Formats: sequence, structure tokens, C-alpha cells
Amino acid sequence: MSQEELFHLLQQVQQGTVSPEQAITQLKIAPFQNLGFARVDTHRSIRQGVPEVIYGAGKTTEQIAGILEAMAGSSNVLITRVSREKLDGLSSRFPVERHDEANLAIVYPKAISNPVGHIVVVSGGTSDMAVAEEAALTAQALGNRVSRIYDAGVAGLHRLLATLDTLTKARVIIAVAGMEGALPSVVGGLVSCPVIAVPTSVGYGASFGGVTALLAMLNSCASGISVVNIDNGFGAGYQASLINHIGEEK
Amino acid sequence: MSQEELFHLLQQVQQGTVSPEQAITQLKIAPFQNLGFARVDTHRSIRQGVPEVIYGAGKTTEQIAGILEAMAGSSNVLITRVSREKLDGLSSRFPVERHDEANLAIVYPKAISNPVGHIVVVSGGTSDMAVAEEAALTAQALGNRVSRIYDAGVAGLHRLLATLDTLTKARVIIAVAGMEGALPSVVGGLVSCPVIAVPTSVGYGASFGGVTALLAMLNSCASGISVVNIDNGFGAGYQASLINHIGEEK
Amino acid sequence: MSQEELFHLLQQVQQGTVSPEQAITQLKIAPFQNLGFARVDTHRSIRQGVPEVIYGAGKTTEQIAGILEAMAGSSNVLITRVSREKLDGLSSRFPVERHDEANLAIVYPKAISNPVGHIVVVSGGTSDMAVAEEAALTAQALGNRVSRIYDAGVAGLHRLLATLDTLTKARVIIAVAGMEGALPSVVGGLVSCPVIAVPTSVGYGASFGGVTALLAMLNSCASGISVVNIDNGFGAGYQASLINHIGEEK
Amino acid sequence: MSQEELFHLLQQVQQGTVSPEQAITQLKIAPFQNLGFARVDTHRSIRQGVPEVIYGAGKTTEQIAGILEAMAGSSNVLITRVSREKLDGLSSRFPVERHDEANLAIVYPKAISNPVGHIVVVSGGTSDMAVAEEAALTAQALGNRVSRIYDAGVAGLHRLLATLDTLTKARVIIAVAGMEGALPSVVGGLVSCPVIAVPTSVGYGASFGGVTALLAMLNSCASGISVVNIDNGFGAGYQASLINHIGEEK
Amino acid sequence: MSQEELFHLLQQVQQGTVSPEQAITQLKIAPFQNLGFARVDTHRSIRQGVPEVIYGAGKTTEQIAGILEAMAGSSNVLITRVSREKLDGLSSRFPVERHDEANLAIVYPKAISNPVGHIVVVSGGTSDMAVAEEAALTAQALGNRVSRIYDAGVAGLHRLLATLDTLTKARVIIAVAGMEGALPSVVGGLVSCPVIAVPTSVGYGASFGGVTALLAMLNSCASGISVVNIDNGFGAGYQASLINHIGEEK
Amino acid sequence: MSQEELFHLLQQVQQGTVSPEQAITQLKIAPFQNLGFARVDTHRSIRQGVPEVIYGAGKTTEQIAGILEAMAGSSNVLITRVSREKLDGLSSRFPVERHDEANLAIVYPKAISNPVGHIVVVSGGTSDMAVAEEAALTAQALGNRVSRIYDAGVAGLHRLLATLDTLTKARVIIAVAGMEGALPSVVGGLVSCPVIAVPTSVGYGASFGGVTALLAMLNSCASGISVVNIDNGFGAGYQASLINHIGEEK
Amino acid sequence: MSQEELFHLLQQVQQGTVSPEQAITQLKIAPFQNLGFARVDTHRSIRQGVPEVIYGAGKTTEQIAGILEAMAGSSNVLITRVSREKLDGLSSRFPVERHDEANLAIVYPKAISNPVGHIVVVSGGTSDMAVAEEAALTAQALGNRVSRIYDAGVAGLHRLLATLDTLTKARVIIAVAGMEGALPSVVGGLVSCPVIAVPTSVGYGASFGGVTALLAMLNSCASGISVVNIDNGFGAGYQASLINHIGEEK
Amino acid sequence: MSQEELFHLLQQVQQGTVSPEQAITQLKIAPFQNLGFARVDTHRSIRQGVPEVIYGAGKTTEQIAGILEAMAGSSNVLITRVSREKLDGLSSRFPVERHDEANLAIVYPKAISNPVGHIVVVSGGTSDMAVAEEAALTAQALGNRVSRIYDAGVAGLHRLLATLDTLTKARVIIAVAGMEGALPSVVGGLVSCPVIAVPTSVGYGASFGGVTALLAMLNSCASGISVVNIDNGFGAGYQASLINHIGEEK
Repeated sequence: MSQEELFHLLQQVQQGTVSPEQAITQLKIAPFQNLGFARVDTHRSIRQGVPEVIYGAGKTTEQIAGILEAMAGSSNVLITRVSREKLDGLSSRFPVERHDEANLAIVYPKAISNPVGHIVVVSGGTSDMAVAEEAALTAQALGNRVSRIYDAGVAGLHRLLATLDTLTKARVIIAVAGMEGALPSVVGGLVSCPVIAVPTSVGYGASFGGVTALLAMLNSCASGISVVNIDNGFGAGYQASLINHIGEEK
Repeated sequence: MSQEELFHLLQQVQQGTVSPEQAITQLKIAPFQNLGFARVDTHRSIRQGVPEVIYGAGKTTEQIAGILEAMAGSSNVLITRVSREKLDGLSSRFPVERHDEANLAIVYPKAISNPVGHIVVVSGGTSDMAVAEEAALTAQALGNRVSRIYDAGVAGLHRLLATLDTLTKARVIIAVAGMEGALPSVVGGLVSCPVIAVPTSVGYGASFGGVTALLAMLNSCASGISVVNIDNGFGAGYQASLINHIGEEK
Repeated sequence: MSQEELFHLLQQVQQGTVSPEQAITQLKIAPFQNLGFARVDTHRSIRQGVPEVIYGAGKTTEQIAGILEAMAGSSNVLITRVSREKLDGLSSRFPVERHDEANLAIVYPKAISNPVGHIVVVSGGTSDMAVAEEAALTAQALGNRVSRIYDAGVAGLHRLLATLDTLTKARVIIAVAGMEGALPSVVGGLVSCPVIAVPTSVGYGASFGGVTALLAMLNSCASGISVVNIDNGFGAGYQASLINHIGEEK
Repeated sequence: MSQEELFHLLQQVQQGTVSPEQAITQLKIAPFQNLGFARVDTHRSIRQGVPEVIYGAGKTTEQIAGILEAMAGSSNVLITRVSREKLDGLSSRFPVERHDEANLAIVYPKAISNPVGHIVVVSGGTSDMAVAEEAALTAQALGNRVSRIYDAGVAGLHRLLATLDTLTKARVIIAVAGMEGALPSVVGGLVSCPVIAVPTSVGYGASFGGVTALLAMLNSCASGISVVNIDNGFGAGYQASLINHIGEEK
Repeated sequence: MSQEELFHLLQQVQQGTVSPEQAITQLKIAPFQNLGFARVDTHRSIRQGVPEVIYGAGKTTEQIAGILEAMAGSSNVLITRVSREKLDGLSSRFPVERHDEANLAIVYPKAISNPVGHIVVVSGGTSDMAVAEEAALTAQALGNRVSRIYDAGVAGLHRLLATLDTLTKARVIIAVAGMEGALPSVVGGLVSCPVIAVPTSVGYGASFGGVTALLAMLNSCASGISVVNIDNGFGAGYQASLINHIGEEK
Repeated sequence: MSQEELFHLLQQVQQGTVSPEQAITQLKIAPFQNLGFARVDTHRSIRQGVPEVIYGAGKTTEQIAGILEAMAGSSNVLITRVSREKLDGLSSRFPVERHDEANLAIVYPKAISNPVGHIVVVSGGTSDMAVAEEAALTAQALGNRVSRIYDAGVAGLHRLLATLDTLTKARVIIAVAGMEGALPSVVGGLVSCPVIAVPTSVGYGASFGGVTALLAMLNSCASGISVVNIDNGFGAGYQASLINHIGEEK
Repeated sequence: MSQEELFHLLQQVQQGTVSPEQAITQLKIAPFQNLGFARVDTHRSIRQGVPEVIYGAGKTTEQIAGILEAMAGSSNVLITRVSREKLDGLSSRFPVERHDEANLAIVYPKAISNPVGHIVVVSGGTSDMAVAEEAALTAQALGNRVSRIYDAGVAGLHRLLATLDTLTKARVIIAVAGMEGALPSVVGGLVSCPVIAVPTSVGYGASFGGVTALLAMLNSCASGISVVNIDNGFGAGYQASLINHIGEEK
Repeated sequence: MSQEELFHLLQQVQQGTVSPEQAITQLKIAPFQNLGFARVDTHRSIRQGVPEVIYGAGKTTEQIAGILEAMAGSSNVLITRVSREKLDGLSSRFPVERHDEANLAIVYPKAISNPVGHIVVVSGGTSDMAVAEEAALTAQALGNRVSRIYDAGVAGLHRLLATLDTLTKARVIIAVAGMEGALPSVVGGLVSCPVIAVPTSVGYGASFGGVTALLAMLNSCASGISVVNIDNGFGAGYQASLINHIGEEK
């Protein structure tokens, strides 16, 4: 409830059109729909300017379908970490734009006419592509213009330096890497925009499922870098979108 | 070396005013000054739009002084993680604006006339203040308008909710917390701007010097959050500044 | 053996109705039945006022059946962490009330007429429901009145605050959460009853199977909180029952 | 702000004795006093029935004194984790009951006439005494009757069994142990009241500053046990008090 | 090669019955048979008084069979960590005494006429039985008299105390436990013989696959305890046998 | 681009045969072929004297095939960590020399006429063989002479000492071991050439998938040892080859 | 209380010379003296055949003195982990045999006439000597014959092999090592007696204060090895004494 | 003892000039001098071609002096990890070339006339200099030609690329870095010689005393890299010397 709404409500109490009891009720009515197993935040799209996102990993197909039904009328609802089996079940019941390679889908898809700004997603190796795509597709679904630079790891610097033009034009960069996680440090030293680092669980042995990359990114000697959780392409795409849209504010 | 400079150099080679040998040398001349123990990047201020920052922790007073001398002419040079003893040694030789409570100093200080945008630094407890101040002072030195909300931990929600007005006006928020590190999650759920989370080493027992807060922040169920290293107030202030300045771009 | 029983036994020795040899034997007879692979504590129900609980995870269907046979005559015997396969095998041989969604069953079920007090189980997300139900069902089986508040994570504070009425009426609260584990801190700051925190293994990347939530809960800045093992809904329900029953004591 | 207060405020708005603007202000006025570095929660004593507690570790003597001044009129304010040096500085300015052996002090001390219930604090070794005393003194300051059983580790069972009378009379038990942290498991098997386990940092080598004891306690095979942070005697005493007071409710 | 054998060899060189070249060869001839993938130590039975043991986990059925063939003539060869599939393959080709419940088998079995001394294997719960049996069967195969006490965890002390007679008669005790791993501490305080502690991977959540039990055992406050690797029933049985045989020495 | 090539390019600019624009383009043309999902470094064979290596684990059969097609004309291309299923798919389309036991294949195989120097691969147990073979086959494919000593663990010193002749003739040794990882320390004390230690994930319990062996190797009290990642037989074979070829330099 | 004592007590009850009430009291009288901060186990020397041991680390000089006074009449009381400062305070009040190099002292010293058996303490480096001496002195104080072999690390095998005579004569060996902790594996492969491994905190970097050595020892590929806590020389000496005395039993 | 020496000894036995008893003694005489606390390996210089190295950290000044006396006649004996206090004590008694900045000294210094090959030591930041110098000075003392490139971290690529000439001329490179430890990956991608990576404990927060850098280096995506322990400049310098000398072999 915004400041203005609160003021308006209190005015109605003052004017007698709303009783104190009704006001209490209203102050408490949460802007969500309680499905028992989930509380769908139908006001969120308005409040934060972005659609609801469904984290698919811990939910059954039925639970996801229930949430989607409650969101009928929304557009471009993201489902992340969703298996192919669940998507098969949902595709027959909802309009779904599938991106199986990133374990992601967009329900109630609607074309985005004017993507804004410029987000660059750069990744270290072929194996990081699923996470990189999760980031890129999230950012696109949120209305951003996105460029991709894949397989540009630090052990082959010339491959990365060849993309310097694209990198330097970005408003915000998402750097995705597994193994030793050095890519954001090198990229961060080349550009002057914010870099969001995404460690991936790609690697073996002492990579510890992405922990090594995570730690390396947190300890980057380059400035202007922050980090999201391991394999959290969505989180990076989401924050990058928030940042990129600041440039559109005025 | 920018695209334009490279083009200009090649033109001079074409015109014969610069020989191939000279061009090679020039292509290799790094825009830094080699002090033996450090290579001062005197072009960085121009390249990235921000002054050089000196990480004071691993350097002797003499080494810091050497770098400062090489940077004569710069303004608002930040020294972070610098002890009072070292500052005492530097204060007599350079113009220094000391912020001992944040182990930070600004050398060659110069008033910033028009701070831009709005960065809010919110912290959980009194003990987090040194890190929060490192973030806030860094952001101020880089030309940003900064608001501070301290001691607003999640176990006393009314204290945090009372500052909602300030929070919702921020272009970017820096959320600083130790112990269970829940502050960024709660703040992130209240606002629609990017939040940079800074875990602090405040706590005891199973806080493991900030690891618990770090992990909690990385696993935040709120969207729009990214994380920097434990106690890295500088890193958060620096990135927040980059983001905040995007809003000034147009 | 209680103080009174010991006194009575010694009196019998004094009176000659029990020989010293018999008394030694009796002092040693453990109140359990040795099945070879398990020692069933048939006196426990009397001693602690609660029925035996069978941890199903490490036992074969045959072993569980053997224990259940030895407990014939008991009522409301809980089996936790029991797979559907094992339950299928047991259902044909014993009266079983199944709760497959919580991997839990109640054998020899008997209606509880007067549940006492008020335990509230609050959970962060849909994915935490199995653990939350293990806690709630355990508490119910032990004779407590239980309310459930699910999907009320801290990143959507209004959803949690809308349940404040229920929360403040609890005698003890069980707060279940995965990911950053911040729910108990926020709940603990809103109420003045004891809060038992249950970290769940829900999350990915640096959630480390619930370790992050566990650490966050142990480091809560709210007072009045204690923590049980990851996913240990049973333990929380059991202790909550002990606490809730204190209120019935007088 | 309670339900009743909110209703009363809304009635005043309805009656015109309070304007909407004033109501908004009042809805926002946090019941705390902002000292700049700390927000003292002066209403907490009323809300939660317990006095404010000051965590001394991260605060300067001046900051603690500032908070204490803001709390003039309160009684039995606990300061935990406070060094002797700080206590020396505070003792001359405030009425202080010092418990240096537990790094704890009670400011504005006031005799507690009728301690209620029965909390037993049991500890494993002489070295755990500081933490055990923090728990016991906290519980006493909060109005509970407290018994102490110290140096009763599990490697000398007869020492523990000799105190069985006291243990079985407790309404809640605080079990404090370092090293292998087995005490709560053994105690938990002997009694039928809730047990709050406190791991201590006592030990060496692979005790990892209390982590081993913490993990052991979380994995206890006894039911009815929950755990607080390493060395968190205060937290255990506080929650034990909440539980113990439930028995006084009716 | 023993001192005496070396002396004898050198005497032969002196006497000219062995040439220096032959002596060098002999000094180098390892008492093992090189199978390419494994070097079978056929002298070990003589050297250490115990038969060869085959760790089955990392070997194919063919590799195990190859080793067994090379050991034809040996008796009571232990194969540990061997799957049922591999045992099925071996049973048709070699005389095998299978103990599937402990993932163990004895090849070329031969009755042991006079088991010596007294080793007691005590375990905490039903789920620890596989590891406990690995220890007990290993000790039996090595010629020791073995007693078993299973499901005697510390949370039900009366169950453990009821077996005190057996425990105090042991020459060495193997204490097997998962979860909080407190059993060896309690047993160690009751007896005056060496105790070998075996942590098991039984547990969930923060038991970390046996790490909690391992750490607890290493930090035992009881004296006379040492620890083997998680689930290493074989190692405990083997060392217990060495210790138990010391008592037969004279 | 080498010094000479750069000089030549600049000369062409000077002579007017290449325009500045063309030079810029050429300076940027990366010596790789962009497949979208991968950037194949076709110049690497020339630059580093070794063929391209494909890390098979994170790539689909189609992606590997795509890379191989781009490398047509190369010889002895290594694919590591490649499953049998993928190899089945590749074998029909490319000339492949399969080494399934080491999860490795050589595509476009070409006989190596004169292997140089002497690399010895020594391993602790039969279970380490896959990793040891990865190292040995990699070294062979890179043109080195390789000897193998397998199943020579430190608990049977005579087995290792019997191979001393071979060990002391090596130019560089690769020591592969799991469990306690002591082999490189013992080998390192016996020889005077560099030793590359490879920890394997062989073991159980507190071996933590090779972490114990890794840590032991990093802490070796022998000099002349360095370590690669867990199970990284390829990395060891590759570096050993670089070292071994130094001996051929002059 | 032994079986016989219990029988005797019950007989007295039967005969009327002891009342049931007195018997209860007696059954409960713990064989220890309660000092408030410690419960001295004065019967332990009789029960376990070894004197009391005082762990000095967590106790004040006054507390140690109090315990020592309660033990007047005992002989060869060990104090471990005791600082020189505390020893200075105790030396003037009690007869003390100091071993400062091992942070250990023997109070009420009494010559041991006939040390039994043979315990060998072998250590890896000069830096491990304090721990090795703690083990050796403990074993000597408990009446064992002890040999020392110091600075015999595995990276110089000839140094270790030169002591093979002494090693093979041991009834039990204590192997002390830091860094990679390989010594027990190598020693265990050379002998056929039990080996107790003691990891020390000697090392740097990834030795993690002895954790690497601890893990290596737990994962030893040699049989017959068990492990005590990091730096726990006392525990090793104590268990070795128990084992060594088994050989004297008959 | 070499093959030849053994043959010669056996010939003497055959010829009767050495008795079997004498031969046994000789076979056992270790080529070291037993100082009680240390066994000085006086033959090592001959055997391995390098002088003895004394690890100073765990030894007293007297112990170091004792070892040095036993090594009289040697030259260029390295003492690593030695404090200034100990060096002060040694300097007056032995000829010492001090390198206090690297906590290292060379005793019995002797000029090295013809350093061979080319080792490059490259480091990331000013704070890594102590470790880098330990590596460089060790390599120099062992007779290698050494170049230093300091403060060339990956966040300022132009600084590193400016040294490409030197890097590509190296026979072996030592790459020293703390924080995210990315330097070896970038360097390894630029050169075709072996790279030894040295993680340093430089950093804060989640750098965990060098663990992050260590893990990153172990997971490097560049080939040809191996790693030594945290801060182990000596180990890197020593192995680099072994490798560099291979190039001199022929």
C-alpha cells in the first residue's frame, strides 16, 4: 500500500465512508491470492515493474499450473529451473515459449517491441551456456537489448580481446564462468560499467560444484564487480535489467 | 589505447611521421609508471572516469607514499584498509582527509560540487558501521549523493519499515549486515531498485567471520540482489557509483 | 526405574520377599525388548508421556514391521522418513494413516480428542512444505493444536505481516525455511514466544543442502530462537509439543 | 502498535480528533529513540515482557553508555560479551552488578522477588563455566529460578547420574558442553522436558572452536533438543526463560 | 627381508654360493606377484600374521578374480566393500562365504578353531549394523572371539548400562555410531580397555555423511579412545585384532 | 600475432599497401573460428607446439563433432572426459583411437615416430588406474616416452622400492594416488627430478572425493613437487610433456 | 560401584543393617568430591588403574591447585596443556616434575620401578617434538617402557628405514606427524603391531592447523592404524599404555 | 646408496675384505648425522645436486645453529621462514646473507658464477612480493637466472601484456598471486612453457588465507599449470630449478 493509498484510506475513515473496522481489514488485506501451497503476488508486476517469476525446481506440475492459472492476464511470466517433463505437461494447457537448453520457459509470451539499453552476456566455455542463456533470456523477457559473447575464456585472451568493441559498449555486463572463475576479473579490468559475475557449477575435482568460481569472483581484484549465487543466471539477468533500466529513467 | 588513438597512430605510420619501430614501442608503452614494487595506472582516471584507489592493507607507509607521489596532480585518491599508524605517517606529507572510523582516507581532497542520484546505505547493527561507512564514503568520494540508515536490523522490523520512504527513493541500495545477513532479503522485497549486499565479519561462533552472512545473501529469495566480498564496503560503494551514474548518462 | 520403584524394591529386599540376587536382576532389566537388530523401548510412552517414534530411513520394511509388532497395543506410533515403497509394504499388515507428502505415517492411529495449546508452523516457500508438514503432523500426533502458515517468505513481507494475528496467538512457533533462512529472524522479532527454527535443504548453489539456512538461523539477531537439524521437522514438532504442554501443566 | 491501539487511532481519525496526516505520522513513529549509531527500542520491555539487552562486543564504551542513558528508568538491563575494560568505564557512571567471569553485567539492577519455575543449567567441564554462567545469569535476570550442575561430562556418567533428581525436576534444561558435545544427548535421554543445547568453543584440534560440539548437538539422537549458536549462553537463557514462563501462564 | 635372511644372503655371497649380481637381484625381488593392474603381496600373511585383504570397491570382478587366483592356497581371504553383483560373479568360481549385509565375503573359508581374547562390538542404532558387522566379521575372520551389542545408543542409557557386564569383560571395544557419535565417549567412561571408535555415515542434514560423528569421536572427553575413517568397520576390526592378540603373546 | 608479424604489418601500412583501417581489422582478427557455441583455436597447435584438446565432459556429441570438423587436418586431437556413448557417436564419423578405460580418445590419430625423454607414471592402487592412464596416454599423444608403475602404494614400501631403477631414470615423474595421497612424498624423497602429483577421488569417508589426497600432496614435506587438480591426469600429462621437452631443447 | 559391592549392599539391606533409605543414598553417592567448579574423581585411579589427569588449558592456576589439593595422596598426577606461568605458580606449592617443552607436568612424582612392554614414539620433524614428547611422557608416567625416534619423515626414507630394528620390536607404535601426515602409513606398512597416529598442527597454508595430516591419517591405505585428535599426544600415550598393558595381563 | 656402490660393497663381501656383519652395518648407516632433535642429511647435496634447506619456522635458534654446525663445509644453505630475531642470533655466529623481506637467509654464501636457463617470477600485487621473492631467491641460490615481473595483476591486462617479451622467453614461469588467483590462468594462456602457480595468503574476507587463490589455480582452464602450497615460494623456486636444469642436461 503506497503513501497515497494510505492517505486516501484514512481520508475515507475521516469522512465516514470507511469504518475503522473496514480500514483495519483493508490495511491487512495482502495483495496476493492464497492458493494454500502458494501465495501469488498479483500486485508485484505493478509494484516492481516486472512480472512474477516462478522458480520451478521445487514445485509439481500441478502447483505451477495452479499459479499460472491465478496469473491469467499477465504476460511474459518466467518459469526457471523447470524440467522438460514439467514443460511437456504445461505446454498443452498454456501458451508457452520453451527454452529447454536453459531449463526456462516464458508463459503468456508477448512480443517486446522496444528493448532498451545494452546488456552483454559473456561466458567462459561451451559448458557454461545453459546458465548464460538463463541470464540472457531473463534479461530479454524483461525488455532489455542483449548481446552474447560465448566461449571467451581467459586462457585464450585473444578470443576475449577480439570482442572488446562489444564489451565497451555495454551498459552492464554479465560475466558467466566456471572452473577458476577468472573471467569477471579480466572483463572488469577492461571496461568501466558494472559487471555482475555468475559462477557456474562447471568443473570437476576441486571446483566443488562452483564454489571455487564463486570464491574467486568474490575476491576479484577488479573493481565494479558483484556476484550472484552459483548457476543463478536468472538473478544476474534480473539485476542487470534493473540496472540497465536506470539508464532509461529520465 | 582507444580505437581513435590506435587509428591516429596508424595514420602517423602511414604518413611517415612515426616509424614502425616507434609504433611498436608506443603500442607497448603501458600507461603506467613502474615504481618497482608497484605499477601506478595514471591513465585509469581518464579511462574509467574514477580516480585510482590504493588498497592500504598490504603496503608499507613508504610504498603508499611512493604511489601518492606518482599520483601528484590527481584528486580525491582513496586509500582503504589503512591503519591509523600509516595515516599518521602520511598526514604530515600529503593533504589527507581522514576517516579513521572506516580505516579510510582521501588524499588530495577536493570538494565535490554536484553529487548525483541517490545511493542509500542501510546497515543492520552498530557493529557494522565501519563497513557501512567505507561504502558510504567511497560513494561520496566518487560524486554520489548518499543517505545512511544504520542499526535497522530485521529482528526489529518497525525500525526498518519506518525508513521506507528513504529506501524507496534510492536509485541503488547498499545493504550491510553481519550475523544471519537477512537484511538485503527484506530490503530487496520492499524496493524495486538494485541492491548490493555487503556481508560483514560481525558475529561470533558459527558466523565464521562473515561466511554465514555471505552465504545467506547469495541465497536470498529476493530478486535484484548481488553480493560483494565480506567487509568489502569499498567494492559496494564503487559498483553502486557506477550504477548510480548510469542514471545520469543521457 | 523411578525413585519410588527403587524404594519399593529395596523395601521388598528388606522384607525378604525379593532376594538380593533377584533385586540385582531387576535393577538391570532394561525396560525394552531386544529384537536383535533393535531394542524397543516399551516403557518410553509411560516415562516421557509420548509414544515411540520410528526413524524409518535406515531400516528395512521387515525391521520396521518387527518393531511395530513388538509395540502392538501402543497407539499413534510415528514413522518418519519412510518411503512410499516401505509404506506400501506396511499398510497391508498394520493400520496405517499415511502422509506421503511428508514421508511420514501414523500406525495404530487413534483420534486425539482434545488437542492443547497452540503451535504455529510457518514456512517460507512451497518447496519447504514437506518439512513443514512433518513438523505439523508430528505436533498433531502428540496432541497439540496446530495452525499452518505456508509460503510466507521474507522477500514479500506483506504476506507475512498479514498473518500477524495468528502468529501472536501462538504459544510456540516453528519457523521452516530454506535458502537464506531469514524467516525465523523476522518472525522472532514480531512475537514474544519461543521460536524453533528448521532449516530445509531447499535451495541450490551455495545453499549447500541447507547449511546456509542452518548457519543463518544459528546466527539470528533475534532472541528466543533455537535451531534443529536440517529438514528435521520431526524434532521441531516434538520439542514444540514438549514446550506447548508446559502451558497445560498446572 | 497493537491491534487495540490501531483501532483506537482509527477511531480518533473517524472522530476528527486526529487528522489523517497525524495518523500517518503516528503509524510511522517507531517506538525507538534514534541515537545515530543505534536505535534504542524503549517499547520492547512492554511488548515482549523482557528488558532490552545490549550486545557489548561490537560497541565502544561510549556507545554503550549512550544506550544506557537512553534507557534510564529501565531495570535489569543486561550487557553481554562486555570486556572488563568497558565495565570499568561504565561502573563509575551507572549502577552496575558485574559478573566478570561471564563477561556480563546487569545495569540498573533491581531485586527479583519471585523467580518462577525451574531452569537447570548443566555443563560438561570446568572450562565451559563462562558460557554456563552467561546462560544462568541471563535466566535469573529474567525472573527464573535456576539450578546449576557443573563439570558433569558424559565420560564420567556416575557424576551426571548423581544429579538425576535435580534434572528430572526441571521445566527446561540448558545443557552446555564443548569438545564432542554429547551432554545434551545423554541428558535428553534421561528427562522429558525440552533441552536447549549450547555448544562451547572449548576444545582443541578438530573441535574447530565449537563446530564439532555444534554439529553433534544438531545431530542428537535424543528427541526434544534444539540448539543455539556456539557460546551463546545468553540465547539459551533467554529462550529457556520464555519456555519456563509458559508454565506460569494460566 | 628379515635381518636373519639378509645376514644369510650376505654369508652366501661371502661363501661364493651367491654372486653379487644374484644378491642384488634377490635384494630387489619383491615378495609379490605383479598382475599388471595389482601387485599381490603373497608374503604378507607370513610377515604380519594376517591374510591378504582385498578392497573390493575400486576393482572389477575380473580384477578381484585375478587376485584371488594368485592367492590360491591362502585361506580366509577377506573381500570388503564388494557389491552383490560382483559376489554373484565370484561365487561360481571360488569357495565364498558371503555376508551380503556387510558387503563382505570370505574366500577360501576355513574354520577358526580357537578364537582368542574378547572383542566387543557395540553400535548405536539399527542403521549402523552394516558397519558394525564389517568390524565384527573382520575380527572373527582374524581369529578373535567377538560379542555384539547393537542398538544401544546414548539417548537410552538404560539400554547401554544393561550390557555393562559384557562391556567390562572386553579386552578391546569397537564402538560404532553415526549421528552425534557420542557412544564411544560414554562407553569409554565406563570401561578401562582401549576403545576404537568407528563413525558411520548414518544420519541426515548436518551429519554430513559421518563427518559430525567423526569429529565428535576425535574430540571425545574420555581417554583411551582412537578413531578410524568413516564406515571403516574393517579397519577397526583389524586393529582390534592386533590389540587383542597382544594379550595372547606371552 | 608475433613481434615479426606486427612489424611486417606496420611496414605494410607505412608502404601504403595496407590501409590503417585494414590494419586495425587485422590486429583484431582472432586466430580462431567462431562456431557460435565454441571458438576453435586453430592457431594453437602452431603457437604452443601442441594440438588442441577437447574437454568432453560439458559438451554434446554434436558440439564435439562440430569442433572436430573445424579441426579437420589436425592430427592426434585429444578428447578427455568423454563418455562411451559420445564416443560411439563419434567413432562412425571420425577416425578415433579409443581408450575407454581412461575416458579418452585420440581423433585423427597419427603414429608418433620418436617419442622423447622419459616420463614415469607411478600410481598407488588399482583403483587409480583410470587417472594414471589419462596422464600416460596424454603424455604419449604429445610425443613422450612413458613408463608405467601401477599399484605401488606406500603401505607396501618394498613394492615401490623394487622399481627404484625406473624411477631414478625419469626426467619427470607423475605420481597418482588417492586415499592419504602419500605416494608423491615418498617418491619425491627418492628421486631428484620434478614430481607432478595427481590426487584421485579414490577413497571413501573422510577422503572427500580426493580432497584429502589433494591437501596431503600440497603439504608434502618433500621438495620438487607440485600438484594438479583432483583426477586431472590430462593436466599432469600435459605439463610433464612440456617439462620433458625442455630436455630436448638444445 | 562394582557388581560385588552392589550385592554386598543389598545383602546389608536384607539383613537390616542398612535401611532402604541409606541404600538409596549410597547407590547415589558418587565417588567424587565436588569442588563447585570441578568434580574430582578420586576413585578413578582404582577403577581404571591409572591416575587422574588434569587438562590444564581451560583452568586457572587456582582451579588446578584446588584439584591437586583434593588429590593429595595420589602420585604421578599428569597436568597437560599447562602454561609455564601456571606451572610457576604451582611449583612453589606442590612437588612438580616439569616438562616445559611438552607443556606438561607430573605432580606428586614417584619413581616407576618396572616399566613394562615397549612403546615406540616416532615423529616426522623437529617441529613435532612437543606433541611427541607429550605422548612419550604420558606413556612413561603410566608405567611403560618408551623409545623415541624423532625427525624421521617419509621424504627421507633412509632415515626411517635405519630405525627398522627398533620399530619392529614395539608392541605398539605412536606415529606423530604434521604436514601431509604420511608417516603412519609408511610405518604401518613396515610393522605388524597397532599404530596410533597423531596429527600435529605443524605446517602452513593448506595444512589448516593439522586438518590435512588428520585426514591423511584417517585415510591411510595401511591397516592397523587408528587416529587421535590433532596434537593429542596425551590421548595417544594413554591408549598406547592401555594396549601395551594388555601384553602384561596374563 | 647407488646401484654401483651396492655392487661394490657386495664385491668386497665376496672378496672377504668386508664381513657380512660390516656390510649389514654399512647398508644401514644412514647418510645423516643424528642431532637428537634432527637428522642432518649431509649426503643430500651430492644425491640430489642441491644443498640442504632448513625450514626455520618450527625450530629454535639453537636448533638451527646446531644443524648449521653439522653442515659446516656446505655452501649456500637456505633457511626459509626464519624470523628477524632468529637471524639476528645466527648472524653473529655464521656467515649469513640476509633477505629479511622474504624471511629467508643464505648461510655459507658462495657466489654462483654461471646461472643457467631462464626462470621468470611474475606476481599480481605489491602484497605478494614476500612470497615472490622467496621463490626468486631460492631459484637464484640454486644456480638459475631469474627475471622478476611484479604488480602485474589481471585486472590491468595492459600491465601484464607489456611484459610479454620477457614471459615468452622463459623456460619455466612461477606465477604468484593472492585474492582470486587468476594470474596463472592468464599467463598460462600466453606462453608455451610450464607454469608453477603459487597462491598467496594475500586478501581478506572470503579469500580464506589463500584458499580461494589455491582453488582457482587448481581449476585453471589453461593447460601446463601445476600448483604448490599457499605461500610456498620456496617450493616453487625449488621445482622451477629442477625443471630449468633439465634444459642444461645434454
